Amino acid sequence: MSTLNSLAKKINGVAQIPNESVGSSVGMVETCYFHFAHPPNELILESNEKLGPITVAYETYGKLDDQGSNAVLILHALTGDAHAAGFHKGDIKPGWWDEMIGPGKAFDTDKYFIICSNVLGGCKGTTGPSSNNPKTAKPYGLDFPIISVSDMVNVQKNLIDHLKIDRLLSVAGGSMGGMQALEWLTVYPNKLKSAIVIATAAKHSPQQIAFHEVGRQAIMADPHWRDGHYYGGLPPAKGLSLARMIGHITYMSEISMAEKFGRRPGDEKPHKFSVGSEVEDYLYNRGNHFVKRFDANS
Amino acid sequence: MSTLNSLAKKINGVAQIPNESVGSSVGMVETCYFHFAHPPNELILESNEKLGPITVAYETYGKLDDQGSNAVLILHALTGDAHAAGFHKGDIKPGWWDEMIGPGKAFDTDKYFIICSNVLGGCKGTTGPSSNNPKTAKPYGLDFPIISVSDMVNVQKNLIDHLKIDRLLSVAGGSMGGMQALEWLTVYPNKLKSAIVIATAAKHSPQQIAFHEVGRQAIMADPHWRDGHYYGGLPPAKGLSLARMIGHITYMSEISMAEKFGRRPGDEKPHKFSVGSEVEDYLYNRGNHFVKRFDANS
Repeated sequence: MSTLNSLAKKINGVAQIPNESVGSSVGMVETCYFHFAHPPNELILESNEKLGPITVAYETYGKLDDQGSNAVLILHALTGDAHAAGFHKGDIKPGWWDEMIGPGKAFDTDKYFIICSNVLGGCKGTTGPSSNNPKTAKPYGLDFPIISVSDMVNVQKNLIDHLKIDRLLSVAGGSMGGMQALEWLTVYPNKLKSAIVIATAAKHSPQQIAFHEVGRQAIMADPHWRDGHYYGGLPPAKGLSLARMIGHITYMSEISMAEKFGRRPGDEKPHKFSVGSEVEDYLYNRGNHFVKRFDANS
Repeated sequence: MSTLNSLAKKINGVAQIPNESVGSSVGMVETCYFHFAHPPNELILESNEKLGPITVAYETYGKLDDQGSNAVLILHALTGDAHAAGFHKGDIKPGWWDEMIGPGKAFDTDKYFIICSNVLGGCKGTTGPSSNNPKTAKPYGLDFPIISVSDMVNVQKNLIDHLKIDRLLSVAGGSMGGMQALEWLTVYPNKLKSAIVIATAAKHSPQQIAFHEVGRQAIMADPHWRDGHYYGGLPPAKGLSLARMIGHITYMSEISMAEKFGRRPGDEKPHKFSVGSEVEDYLYNRGNHFVKRFDANS
């Protein structure tokens, strides 16, 4: 049972015995694809560059009501994807926000029509640097234009129009997803009734810029980086893994990290790089796991 | 004029016109070398490994008084060295703490006998991974034993004995130097009258361990790393530069970084990695500068 759901039940004062059927899964799901911005009608980006055609990978859970009034758009963070809930065929693990999305869960699919799409520039089905550049018939790599949160939201707006939704009940996202939520509120205030904005900011602080820069430098220092033209060869896995390790440090507060990995008696042995402390092993595993599912150019 | 000195003058209420002669330089200085722990009398490390012979690079400024009562030991941070004040022949820049050490400065060389030595495991004259291993007649590299703050302080104690100083007036250091000051206070409480402990901790938090681990991984991901056996070839400069960039983020608080590098109007242009924001350029330059003066194994 999700925390929000528990909280709601506590607030409502309803005494329930928790059981497996509370907050069940949306079950088997499939990713859908929406294509638009075909030349000569390319999308004009914030940078004034044109991009097209564009494919958007998205999933939906629940049913849109007759008034089209129950649609909630889920906005993922930097490394997320469209697969927010349920199971793809053959998968053991559900989508990335399955704890929150499903019948009886916080985003209750018995009530709401939930949409989640991969962002522009991503690497999970929506057009991004690993997509083929129609001009060269090869992956864009670094020729992919620099995109902004505003461009991501513009693409989502095109998807919502395609789904014939005039006004969203809500948009919800954390981190870079929260930045998209703020952009929705600012640019399309009449297109949504509410927004759930989590753990985010309207712009990056110098410290955040610095952490991102070090992550980028780590990727670009990898000999497999080859200016982003690594498709078909080995990807810059060590650099990307390092960038992910740096990211993970910033995803936890100093206090929560101390609680999770505080040194315990017996941890004080000197070591020679190969055997690490718990926090070192954790970061190393996070980094190694990440490179299997994410493209450095994205 | 140093901040401490200014502060002292303000506190004393003395009206002075600042001039160049207030807080002057100790002038030309040279590094001295002390050798000890010759086999079979090697130093026994905290790890129980033996290390010897050991060379200690150190500098002194001012004069030891007849009672040997005015000696202050300066303890440097991770990447520092013995050259804390004055000028080496041909140098344009003075030692790393020249603002604080000199006639009329906070560590007043008219009054005090100042000592600063490079730590054990360093790369500026004291025995470390780039020193020759007597067993192989090649640089130690990763065969250099893992050393602790306790080992660094033991070596300093040997130097103090060699200089015939029975009791230090003070020890002073920040960051890893502050850790050494805490160790001096704990292990040799009768050997010093005071300690100046700056910006440090008795042990690393998981977050600090994590930052160090990412720095190490950055070095070890560099193809020039070659398990630390890079002497005589190209050093892992990109990895070390990255580690320094990560370090520099942690040397500033989020607030001071925002004050120094806060985004100003006109900074908001999207860029394509080659042209960075001020904080990106700063970190990149810090990293590139650092690799010229520090050994990754240290």
